Amino acid sequence: MKRSDRLVALTNYFISNPRQHTSLPYFTTKFDAAKSSLSEDLDIIDQRFREEGLGYLHRISGAGGGVEYIPSHDEEASLIFIDQLCDMLADSSRILPGGYIYMSDILGNPKTVRQIGHVFASVFSEMEIDAVVTVATKGIPLAYAVASFLNVPVVIVRRDPKVTEGSSVSINYVSGSSRKIQTMVLPKRSLKEGTNVCIIDDFMQAGGTITGITSLLKEFQANVQAIGVLAEADDEEDERIVHDYTSLIKIHNLMSQDNIQVSRGSFQSHKN
Amino acid sequence: MKRSDRLVALTNYFISNPRQHTSLPYFTTKFDAAKSSLSEDLDIIDQRFREEGLGYLHRISGAGGGVEYIPSHDEEASLIFIDQLCDMLADSSRILPGGYIYMSDILGNPKTVRQIGHVFASVFSEMEIDAVVTVATKGIPLAYAVASFLNVPVVIVRRDPKVTEGSSVSINYVSGSSRKIQTMVLPKRSLKEGTNVCIIDDFMQAGGTITGITSLLKEFQANVQAIGVLAEADDEEDERIVHDYTSLIKIHNLMSQDNIQVSRGSFQSHKN
Repeated sequence: MKRSDRLVALTNYFISNPRQHTSLPYFTTKFDAAKSSLSEDLDIIDQRFREEGLGYLHRISGAGGGVEYIPSHDEEASLIFIDQLCDMLADSSRILPGGYIYMSDILGNPKTVRQIGHVFASVFSEMEIDAVVTVATKGIPLAYAVASFLNVPVVIVRRDPKVTEGSSVSINYVSGSSRKIQTMVLPKRSLKEGTNVCIIDDFMQAGGTITGITSLLKEFQANVQAIGVLAEADDEEDERIVHDYTSLIKIHNLMSQDNIQVSRGSFQSHKN
Repeated sequence: MKRSDRLVALTNYFISNPRQHTSLPYFTTKFDAAKSSLSEDLDIIDQRFREEGLGYLHRISGAGGGVEYIPSHDEEASLIFIDQLCDMLADSSRILPGGYIYMSDILGNPKTVRQIGHVFASVFSEMEIDAVVTVATKGIPLAYAVASFLNVPVVIVRRDPKVTEGSSVSINYVSGSSRKIQTMVLPKRSLKEGTNVCIIDDFMQAGGTITGITSLLKEFQANVQAIGVLAEADDEEDERIVHDYTSLIKIHNLMSQDNIQVSRGSFQSHKN
C-alpha cells in the first residue's frame, strides 16, 4: 500500500476511533509497511490534525507503546461555535412558558450535537472518565456525542423504572425549581462500583436534576469528575445547589421573560 | 499544501460530513490546489473508501457539480457485525421477565451504536429520507447514529408531553402486546408537512409502538419510507401489524422463555 492510501486509511481509523490506544505493529502488519514509513505517516497526520484544530496524536514509545488520537477542539473554534449557538437561541419565538426554551431543533441536528460533544470532550480531556451519565430524555444525544469522543460507554438514568432493564436502584430527590419530590432510577447492572463519571445534561436551572443524579450515583459509589450542561438559566443562580460545572451557554432572565439575553456560559471562564 | 496534507484533511472532511454535497471550488480554494490535483486526491480517497468497505465518493460533474461521501457499509462486513451482536445477545443472563432482553450495555456503547447506524444507513442509502423519527428512550442513540450517516435531523416522539417543547399533537393507540391504550406526542414545530422519514427503534414485538408512531406521523402528513429495528422478537409474529421493516436481529421464543435463540433478522433477506 502506498503512502497516500495509508494516509486515507489511517485518518479514517483515528477519526472513527478516538482515544483508542493502538500498537504500531497493528498498523505495520495491516499495511505491510516499515516502522519508519508508518512513523512518517503519523507525523503528517498529527501535524494536519493540530493545524485543523481537531486534536493530536498521542504517541507512546517503547514496549507496549503505540498511538492514540486525542480529539481536543481548538479553543478559538469552540468559542466561535458557542457564539453561533447563542445566536440561534437568541430568538424570542423559542421562549416557552415556565422558564423554558425550545432547543429540540438544535438538539435534533446530529452535526451540531457532535460538535457540542467535541467541545465538552476537550474540556474533560485531561480527566479520568470511564463513563458518561445522563438522564432521559434530552441529555441522551449530547451524552453519546461526548462519550464517542472520550471512547467510554453511556449510562442513562430514568425517571421511571422500565421492565426491560431488570432490578434497579432508585432514589427520591427534591426538584430544584418546583420543590416536588421526584424519582430517579438506574438499573443495578449498568454501573460498576467506583466508576469515574462525568454527568451531561441539556439544561440546568437551580440544579435539582444534577443533584438528583449525583445522589443516585452515590449509591453506586461512583466518582463524579465533571459536570457539563449545554445551557444554564441564571434566574435561580442564588439558590443554585450545583457549583462546579461547565456550561456552554447562559440564558439570562428566562423565568421572568423580561429582557432575555443569551451569552457564553462558564466554558469561557474555565478556559481563561 | 502538499498532497499528503490534503488527503488527511479531505478524509477527515468526508468522514465527518457524510452525504454533504460540496462543490469542488470550495476545496480548490481551501487548499489552494489545482482542479486536476484535487481530482486525483478524490480518486485516491474514493478507491480507498471502497476497499475498506466504508462507502464511496459520489461525484457530479458540470456546473453545480461537486462531491459527496455516501457511507454504505460493505454487506459482508454488516453480516459479520450482526453475527457479533447475535453472539452478545445469546446470553441467558440477559433475559428479563415478560419477553424482554437486556440490551442497555450494548446500546450504551457509542462505537457499537455507530456501527448499527452505519448498517441501517446503508440499507436506506438509495431512499429519499429527510428525517429520522424515533420514540423515547431506547431508540434515541440508534436514531442519531442513523441520522448522522444520512445527514438529516432526528425527531423524537414522546409518551408524555413535556413543558419544554411547546404545543403538541398527540394520538392514542393500542399497544400490541399489552392491549393497553397508550399516548404518543410530537411537538407541532418538530416536523414540516410532507417530510419523508424513516422510523428507527431498538426492539419490536407485535409492532404496536411502530404502528403508534406511524399514526402520529399521519397527523403531520409525513411519508414513512422505511422502518428499522435493531431486534425483533418472533413470539407474536402471527399477530404482527407491521410487515415492511428491516431488523438486524431476530430473537426466537423470548416470551415463552423456552429454548431462546438469536439469529440474523430480516436484514439478510433484504440483501439477498
